[in-house]
Amino acid sequence: MGDLTVRTGDASYPIHIGPGLVSDPSVYAPHIGTGGAVVVTNETVAPLYLKAVQTALGDTRQHAIILTDGESHKTAEVLATIWDELIAERFSRDVTIIALGGGVIGDMAGFAAATYQRGVPYIQVPTTLLAQVDSSVGGKTAVNRPGGKNMVGAFYQPVCVIADTATLATLPARELRCGVAETIKYGLIRDPEFFEWMEANVRGLLDCDDAALAYAVRRACENKAEVVAADEREHGERALLNFGHTFGHAIETGLGHGQWLHGEAVAAGMCMAADLSARLGRLRQDEVARINDMIETSGLPRLGPAAVSSERMRELMAIDKKVLAGKVRLILLDAIGRATITSDFGADLLAATLESCREAA
Amino acid sequence: MGDLTVRTGDASYPIHIGPGLVSDPSVYAPHIGTGGAVVVTNETVAPLYLKAVQTALGDTRQHAIILTDGESHKTAEVLATIWDELIAERFSRDVTIIALGGGVIGDMAGFAAATYQRGVPYIQVPTTLLAQVDSSVGGKTAVNRPGGKNMVGAFYQPVCVIADTATLATLPARELRCGVAETIKYGLIRDPEFFEWMEANVRGLLDCDDAALAYAVRRACENKAEVVAADEREHGERALLNFGHTFGHAIETGLGHGQWLHGEAVAAGMCMAADLSARLGRLRQDEVARINDMIETSGLPRLGPAAVSSERMRELMAIDKKVLAGKVRLILLDAIGRATITSDFGADLLAATLESCREAA
Repeated sequence: MGDLTVRTGDASYPIHIGPGLVSDPSVYAPHIGTGGAVVVTNETVAPLYLKAVQTALGDTRQHAIILTDGESHKTAEVLATIWDELIAERFSRDVTIIALGGGVIGDMAGFAAATYQRGVPYIQVPTTLLAQVDSSVGGKTAVNRPGGKNMVGAFYQPVCVIADTATLATLPARELRCGVAETIKYGLIRDPEFFEWMEANVRGLLDCDDAALAYAVRRACENKAEVVAADEREHGERALLNFGHTFGHAIETGLGHGQWLHGEAVAAGMCMAADLSARLGRLRQDEVARINDMIETSGLPRLGPAAVSSERMRELMAIDKKVLAGKVRLILLDAIGRATITSDFGADLLAATLESCREAA
Repeated sequence: MGDLTVRTGDASYPIHIGPGLVSDPSVYAPHIGTGGAVVVTNETVAPLYLKAVQTALGDTRQHAIILTDGESHKTAEVLATIWDELIAERFSRDVTIIALGGGVIGDMAGFAAATYQRGVPYIQVPTTLLAQVDSSVGGKTAVNRPGGKNMVGAFYQPVCVIADTATLATLPARELRCGVAETIKYGLIRDPEFFEWMEANVRGLLDCDDAALAYAVRRACENKAEVVAADEREHGERALLNFGHTFGHAIETGLGHGQWLHGEAVAAGMCMAADLSARLGRLRQDEVARINDMIETSGLPRLGPAAVSSERMRELMAIDKKVLAGKVRLILLDAIGRATITSDFGADLLAATLESCREAA
């Protein structure tokens, strides 16, 4: 499959993509120093891939930290248990942390790496489609707070990303669909050809077709790497990657984390953003219909949950990180493949979108 | 007094030094954005300087977070209360955090700034000599864990440092002496002329002589800025700034944080490092004597506390952050003004130093 490179201000790092990489010693070796390696994973992924990683690490001093699975455990309290286990096991600042799992593991192990002894190197080994196409690349790490998702964290780049597409075969269908949602996102915000490819090939992805998965992961990572290289700390273009996310985070927080999966909330959020874009006269109705069709064909929710009122949605959106000086900013579409960030929309149109893009009670 | 500039890889920022700056609107204004300002301070400093800072901030949207004073409160739990107050008050990523206080406030408010919404700008307003000469410059932020001091944190540079030397007049004598300890450190590791100046002028510092304080703060910051510019993330020379600190942290952790002040522990730690340097034939005895005299004249402890055994000291030193691949590294002196980092010393000599540099029970 070959490799990609992510370039940021002061460093660059490889993304290896292909089947079987998780057990390949040569992809880990260049990044493990004298201080050994600590694999951070969860109880779902550990039985599947931990042994393969440990074997690949060979004689290196190594240790595994196995967390409870799920977004509801992406907390500062769990982060503290990682810190304290690293301290108790006396790992120095020369340790390399390996994040083996999905987005939650990557976010937390990455934040632990960013902060343990003021920063140690880490490797992302994403085992979900969502993590492979999005969260493992670009160095965003975080934990949730009761008041909001990803409210604390760090921009902290990994030394390497190892995306083993064969691991996706063990992924539950619901999680695979969540990765499809983030994949669709790249097409919508900046890559209209990729969106067309998705329209033609999404069934292959959902059936875990090897070639389709490998193509989609690579193309998504190329998009992500370009965006991160241009704007590591999200002062500009990188914010477009949050397309659908302000709506989506409000759904997740409104329902309680872990009810809907992140990709499901983002899917509904993207449809809401498309709806609002059309109400503002930015996006054509036939493009809205294509977006809704794409989401439905992927088996993803097009509407927000009945359990979160449109008033509650507005309230939660007001505390999203993308709020600038008190004004909610949203990423909207001018066309499939062309996004913009703006706070130029009326409260009435937003309310209409939230009301019409919500499941009947 | 004029300004200094700290240059790091991707940014540079000013250090303003002089009396009365804390209430000068012009030093804050360039760094306050549309998101307002949050002053993080403690219950000791707030009655003295909070109003002056608030007045200087003028019409900016502002908020104050007042923490309990003391090293024992430099914890992840207190950090979480800062995060949650920022969230509850709906501050966006455009907020500027102002750390008003000593090293504990600077470390915690700085770490909060490094992690709130993945990083917001912050200003250091150090009100202790220790913070003015050392901790406020260079971007080291951290909190303690039960297993060790400063074990988690971030390298995260402030946008500006405002060192108001007039604030030192309200500092308790014991805390002033702690700042003197860190000031002596620069002389010992890299600036022999400054050490001579300290030998001649330390009484002026202890008496809060304006000119002496201003000179010492400026010269210390010049040293610190040079070191940080050369090695922001402590891969080389910056480690020398930890002279005395591996011993000192062991004293602090061994006694329980808050028993001895940080500068007191570092003072005894520097004498221990000098003692070990002499035992290894690196440092002349007359220089050891000058160092011990300097520490005693400053009213600082030359010996470690009787309550921490030399065995316990060794154990605690083994989990210090500067341990590389399981081997304790120490900063030792070859002369006053010339330091080196090494793990080349026998366990027997370290034991002899720890035994002889300890108060009688």
